[in-house]
Amino acid sequence: MTRMLVVGGTGETGSWFARYFKAKGFDIAIWGPSGKVAIAKKLGVCYALDIISEVKESDIVLLSVPINKTSEVAKQIAPHMKPGSLIMDVTSLKTNPLRAMEMYAPKGVEVLGTHPLFGPTMPDMRGQTIILTPAGRKTKKWFPIIRSLFESDGARIEVLSAEQHDEIMAVVQALTHFAYIGIGATLRSLEFDVEQSRKFMSPVYEIMIDFVGRILDQNLDLYASIQENPKAMRVRQTFILECMRLCEMADAGDHEGLRRTMEVAASHYGKTHEALLRSDRLISSRIRDKRG
Amino acid sequence: MTRMLVVGGTGETGSWFARYFKAKGFDIAIWGPSGKVAIAKKLGVCYALDIISEVKESDIVLLSVPINKTSEVAKQIAPHMKPGSLIMDVTSLKTNPLRAMEMYAPKGVEVLGTHPLFGPTMPDMRGQTIILTPAGRKTKKWFPIIRSLFESDGARIEVLSAEQHDEIMAVVQALTHFAYIGIGATLRSLEFDVEQSRKFMSPVYEIMIDFVGRILDQNLDLYASIQENPKAMRVRQTFILECMRLCEMADAGDHEGLRRTMEVAASHYGKTHEALLRSDRLISSRIRDKRG
Repeated sequence: MTRMLVVGGTGETGSWFARYFKAKGFDIAIWGPSGKVAIAKKLGVCYALDIISEVKESDIVLLSVPINKTSEVAKQIAPHMKPGSLIMDVTSLKTNPLRAMEMYAPKGVEVLGTHPLFGPTMPDMRGQTIILTPAGRKTKKWFPIIRSLFESDGARIEVLSAEQHDEIMAVVQALTHFAYIGIGATLRSLEFDVEQSRKFMSPVYEIMIDFVGRILDQNLDLYASIQENPKAMRVRQTFILECMRLCEMADAGDHEGLRRTMEVAASHYGKTHEALLRSDRLISSRIRDKRG
Repeated sequence: MTRMLVVGGTGETGSWFARYFKAKGFDIAIWGPSGKVAIAKKLGVCYALDIISEVKESDIVLLSVPINKTSEVAKQIAPHMKPGSLIMDVTSLKTNPLRAMEMYAPKGVEVLGTHPLFGPTMPDMRGQTIILTPAGRKTKKWFPIIRSLFESDGARIEVLSAEQHDEIMAVVQALTHFAYIGIGATLRSLEFDVEQSRKFMSPVYEIMIDFVGRILDQNLDLYASIQENPKAMRVRQTFILECMRLCEMADAGDHEGLRRTMEVAASHYGKTHEALLRSDRLISSRIRDKRG
């Protein structure tokens, strides 16, 4: 039986993975800084009262801690791991967490970065994407085990280097969130009445505004940390510059300039019509949801 | 039998409404600047070869022309309308189009602004919102007829003044589009490979990027015109200022500042958790869509 310690297993993501691996037959212990033993009880797993001796006995240590704590936690925990064991994380950035795990894990301990592209509100990982970023050192033993485990539950696995991961996520996560958070801050600044405005929203706007609310409802520390992606600064600055260009054209009534900018963006984007059709299906599903 | 002329009925939105009112038993003629008689044939309606004599005979003239053409078209057409008839439009802005229709329609002609918050890719108006902006002059006869017709097909009707409409739409439409178009322009500027990146997207990002594509795929003149909403300038400028504030905090690694800004935005937003739950259902529907 594989023995796994989930560090941060008292949090929502940590609990999700503790539950997941328990269902797979792993022998699970969790630990959290808040000492919430009750959560372990509820999950039907052990609470590691003595974390270091639990680390020493574990085949896998899974770090589910805030991104900015990963390095500190890896430093305390990784040196005590046994040869042949695996340290892995589930954080949204990969370069720095992976570097920390590699730095502090002794030789003979395997290191695997994972980034599940879904949150703990999802019932399971079916149809979800999980990015694996194996460390520079070999992860011969555990990588195929974890990979096929996730794949057997219908997750789509993608393998990237930690650098490639952060480069892509600077757009996929950081830019997306940034725009939504920017809209949220604008609604506040304008004192725009979101609830009242729902009456005047088409599904397109409602969906957008729901995603603004979704982000503002979740772990704000996580969203702040995602902006700390070292590759995100350039992306944010490009976004603001592009918005300023568009704004100047719109303010000046430069209809042609706006249209041309959109045309060029559409041509770069590529398959816009497929996007239209997919979003149509989403809108129909939202309308059914409202009727139901 | 109510006789209706759809000016711009050869376009997608105009054809949609020609088809709609035909199904309701109206006697429809269409006209378009491109003279596409074939479209009238396909719709099974008349093509108004002599537009002015058709206007003179019509009970309702529906303008479905680009926003920036509405005033010019109203000027050519409205003066020829008969007493007791109705001129209405279906454009996305209301202050200027309504002003033009009121200015050029003779006394005794009713004026009604409508803004269907959905596009011609929707199969029907069930569950969709339509905003009606009656003119200052009385629209005694036609307003209740149009209203109950749309309501009988499951549309949600909201009544606003043209000014209120444009004020709300400066956020609901102009800001939403602006952010999405800004993201589209950023993807181009970064030469970000959208297709390749789909592999690394969670449903949240996929949905966002689909809405960027949706807008870039549609009528770019319409989207440019929506930015010409007189109330949109202030909204865009506020958005850029808020983004700059957020960007400064993120660039400086001001984690606390970012978190606090999001907290304040969340508290202004209100029911963020309902938004999370709705977006969860949408994500589940997207996952089902991908499996199917």
